[in-house]
Amino acid sequence: MPKIFIKNQNRTLEYSKDKSLLEILLQNEIFVNNPCNGKGSCGKCKVKVLEGNLEEISDTEKKLLKKEELHSGIRLSCLVTPKEDIVIEILHKETKHKILTTGYIPKFEFKPSIYKKVFNIEKPTLDNQNSFEDSICDTFNIKSINWNILKEHEFLHGKVTGVFNNKELIGIEIGDTKDKLYGVAIDIGTTTVVVSLIDMITGKELAIDSTINPQKKFGLDVLTRITYELENPNGSREELQSVIVNAINKIIKNMCGKLNINIKNIYEISIAANSTMMHFLLGIDGTYIGKSPFAPMFIKSKNIESKDIGLIGSNFCRLYCLPSVSSYIGADIVAGAYVSKLEEAKKNVLFIDIGTNGEIVLSNHGKLLSCSCAAGPALEGMNISSGMRAAEGAIEDVKITEKGIEIKVIGDKEPIGVCGSGILAVVKELIRTKLVKKDGAFIKKEKIDESDYRYDMIQLNGRKREFVLDNRGKQLLITQSDVRQVQLAKGAILSGFYALLKKANIDMDSLDKVVIAGQFGAHLSSDSLVGIGILPKEVENKLEYVGNSSKTGAYMCLMSSDVKKRIEKLAHKIDYMELGASKGYERLFAECLLFSR
Amino acid sequence: MPKIFIKNQNRTLEYSKDKSLLEILLQNEIFVNNPCNGKGSCGKCKVKVLEGNLEEISDTEKKLLKKEELHSGIRLSCLVTPKEDIVIEILHKETKHKILTTGYIPKFEFKPSIYKKVFNIEKPTLDNQNSFEDSICDTFNIKSINWNILKEHEFLHGKVTGVFNNKELIGIEIGDTKDKLYGVAIDIGTTTVVVSLIDMITGKELAIDSTINPQKKFGLDVLTRITYELENPNGSREELQSVIVNAINKIIKNMCGKLNINIKNIYEISIAANSTMMHFLLGIDGTYIGKSPFAPMFIKSKNIESKDIGLIGSNFCRLYCLPSVSSYIGADIVAGAYVSKLEEAKKNVLFIDIGTNGEIVLSNHGKLLSCSCAAGPALEGMNISSGMRAAEGAIEDVKITEKGIEIKVIGDKEPIGVCGSGILAVVKELIRTKLVKKDGAFIKKEKIDESDYRYDMIQLNGRKREFVLDNRGKQLLITQSDVRQVQLAKGAILSGFYALLKKANIDMDSLDKVVIAGQFGAHLSSDSLVGIGILPKEVENKLEYVGNSSKTGAYMCLMSSDVKKRIEKLAHKIDYMELGASKGYERLFAECLLFSR
Repeated sequence: MPKIFIKNQNRTLEYSKDKSLLEILLQNEIFVNNPCNGKGSCGKCKVKVLEGNLEEISDTEKKLLKKEELHSGIRLSCLVTPKEDIVIEILHKETKHKILTTGYIPKFEFKPSIYKKVFNIEKPTLDNQNSFEDSICDTFNIKSINWNILKEHEFLHGKVTGVFNNKELIGIEIGDTKDKLYGVAIDIGTTTVVVSLIDMITGKELAIDSTINPQKKFGLDVLTRITYELENPNGSREELQSVIVNAINKIIKNMCGKLNINIKNIYEISIAANSTMMHFLLGIDGTYIGKSPFAPMFIKSKNIESKDIGLIGSNFCRLYCLPSVSSYIGADIVAGAYVSKLEEAKKNVLFIDIGTNGEIVLSNHGKLLSCSCAAGPALEGMNISSGMRAAEGAIEDVKITEKGIEIKVIGDKEPIGVCGSGILAVVKELIRTKLVKKDGAFIKKEKIDESDYRYDMIQLNGRKREFVLDNRGKQLLITQSDVRQVQLAKGAILSGFYALLKKANIDMDSLDKVVIAGQFGAHLSSDSLVGIGILPKEVENKLEYVGNSSKTGAYMCLMSSDVKKRIEKLAHKIDYMELGASKGYERLFAECLLFSR
Repeated sequence: MPKIFIKNQNRTLEYSKDKSLLEILLQNEIFVNNPCNGKGSCGKCKVKVLEGNLEEISDTEKKLLKKEELHSGIRLSCLVTPKEDIVIEILHKETKHKILTTGYIPKFEFKPSIYKKVFNIEKPTLDNQNSFEDSICDTFNIKSINWNILKEHEFLHGKVTGVFNNKELIGIEIGDTKDKLYGVAIDIGTTTVVVSLIDMITGKELAIDSTINPQKKFGLDVLTRITYELENPNGSREELQSVIVNAINKIIKNMCGKLNINIKNIYEISIAANSTMMHFLLGIDGTYIGKSPFAPMFIKSKNIESKDIGLIGSNFCRLYCLPSVSSYIGADIVAGAYVSKLEEAKKNVLFIDIGTNGEIVLSNHGKLLSCSCAAGPALEGMNISSGMRAAEGAIEDVKITEKGIEIKVIGDKEPIGVCGSGILAVVKELIRTKLVKKDGAFIKKEKIDESDYRYDMIQLNGRKREFVLDNRGKQLLITQSDVRQVQLAKGAILSGFYALLKKANIDMDSLDKVVIAGQFGAHLSSDSLVGIGILPKEVENKLEYVGNSSKTGAYMCLMSSDVKKRIEKLAHKIDYMELGASKGYERLFAECLLFSR
């Protein structure tokens, strides 16, 4: 078989000749940016070919790549199909990812569904021929036990520990194991998976780790992944499921290994996620989420055996999946609404989770209404020419001053791209300094005086205007298209915001609080949010950040069966408004696109 | 690899050299009688070697085989380990088995746990984005559905059929499938498995078939099989389970094929069996049944998914296992007690199932007491020198007259052995004609006058007396040892009978009815039962036969959820008396050994 040598990773892959270079790399777990999932339309999956022959440069590549790129050997990996030994360089420099893992946790009483009881089984005698099952049932005053317990055990007697889920005996362990009771709380995001190992006796978080959602190789956003499922009816659902399950298992194993905790002492895994991620996790058809009328297969919570989907833990470990509201208001948002106590609000509170989708829940003195805005991935740094995730080397903050451009880079490294918060910061600055007008267009260079500090910040690429963010190494640019992407995202979220208020008949003054949730939201300053106009000026001083409330919700469910019940009730109470189907929405959206608003 | 050619089956087997001939044959599904399970003690696994060399004849073989047998090349297959090509003849002529498949069924209302409902799922719209799960829950006013349903289906709309188990929705089928609803009722005996395919709409038995319990290759009785499990801790439990599951699947497939019924339309399998068979079926440790204090792992009923143990049927087919009372009063007996309405008895009724074990349940105006008597397999024709199962060629009835011996052979074939009812008949006749005395010994030949019609019926083998049952082809003999086996069985059952009556304080006159149950019992005439003294003379006119009440109980549970509940309650109410632990039992047993009693 022919070989690919990746020079900057010092790694050799063998490959079969019928696959695109992108497919080969992804199969080997080498990350290449490919938002369009190999469709040859996004132009992101660039790879530099150092040695070896490939097919001629296609018209698509000529269109999507710059001349200099083509000259230096850069190709789009989804469009080339190698046939012989080649040497390449991977351009994407992904290193450590900065993930927010903490957040606000309301006070609550620990009362996990899972608990243990130690008891004594008497040895049978000729006068007491009680069966093993009956001995246990009698001791605990229960009617029957799961037959798996009978299958797994000998006729135990003496001290044993029963493991219960609510009041059901789900397992038995030999001896007294009361002090070993662990659980896992997980937030599965489209981009990031956060896993937290919990001591269920103390409620303490023993370890936390995260990983990129490995489903990204099937597309960066939920719709691309759903398209992948749709276009590959054979096996794609299993594939989407197994990569996420394996990723979670790997983290759990790793954390347990470090802490010297036996994986068999994990008894419940509690998961919050958006609806698509939840469908994929459980291996349930997610394609309906992607097509009108957007009715999902399920929204209710699920309480099953974790081994049913291949998750590790005790043989009788449970899996709890939090409930959703609709295809686009998932369990992550329900968790957030619960953690933020929206239902108990005595005032008007708006909860917003900004990400690829912006989900908003409005609490009108406890009456809950939600909507989801298709913001697109721009706010997370995707679909942006120099965009990247919030990893080392990403510009996360920008200030434009008369002295020049100040940037802040994650990990204090050389900048290699711009992450979401950086994008927002730079666009906010472009507006503030009037380099970008209220309609979103760059100011014409000829309208800037040569002595103006802003003059050199704009350059022309043919007739297109670009903002030069960094010029030291590789030029980092913000293009007109980048600004448009942010503008679309802003328009989507802001219009959702107004639509909800209007529907609830609440004016801006009556809005008492805006809660910003999520991994990503926590990195967005009120300056940026209001400066760009993602949120209206009037709320500038009403913002509150709750952090990763999705994971917090999963944690609270793990630690309290009451929370589970309350969250299930809450999910029922959140009404959902389909923005696209609401009257006058198109016009509202157009208005909200303006940076002035 | 060396070969074994089986001449009378025209079949060649390859084998590896480290196995006994018995093991090789059993592995190839060739039945060889081996009650002691290859321990070299029963002398039954005879095979005739026609060509090829084997090791020298062992002392054990010299002891267990007759000189003529040794001369004709007969060897004990468990004691020889072939190393080269050999030609053999299988002596066991097993053909069709005669199995009782009908019996008394009390009137009851059909109300199966499993039922279907047809309903209509509306197509979702933008105004009604109800999830698939919610659509179904709303239609049926249920709280949730099994997540497997979500996994197996697309977002169905239009006409669908829901399959319910009690009130739980367990599956969904596309279109209206209301008229296809099948179930299976099974009786698993130690020796025989009876499988009945039921139309659950009409309650009609569509087909019935049976097979030898394939676990017999691990021993003929429960204790030998338990010993096998005990001695082979790795894999034996799975082995015991898979052979019975496969045998049942084979029958179901075959019946469905003949009737053109889709196996996927089987929704419940209901099984009655003795406790050991039930443990083996479910893959649960059965070894405790075999050792004091004889406390089993479980006795309660089980209601699980049939696929959990590998049984075929619909993907969501249920398996119902009837409840037991103790290690030796199994679900088969509980079924029998239910079918015989023991609990409702206004009088004193004794229920008895005669087989390898004799199980007795006494109803004292509805108060129930049971015991189990270790009769041994003699009454079923096992452990008897010319014994065989009730198959074609078996002598099933015998009459001794002045004109000679009249025999009745199953299938009107040449006699090749004696089955259980034949054994009982001949022993009864030996007692009636005083060829056997009350203490069980044969009369001395010198005490019979040469002119007596009985003179030629007794022959001497050395100093041992034998009864010549048939002399036409191969001599069929009843030996002193055979009579002793029957005597032990009779003693065990009769003593159990008396012990129960005594414990319940009921005298013989107050006993109103004796119900004879079981496959085997149905073939035992009152003449034989009373003639030998298995049952006392006083009950001769009080006998009633209910047939295979074990299978009938399984059938009734299949057809009525109420019967399930009632049988579960009944199992709780049957008290169990451990004969061996009861006072004065040894003496009672000794008295009951006499044929006079």
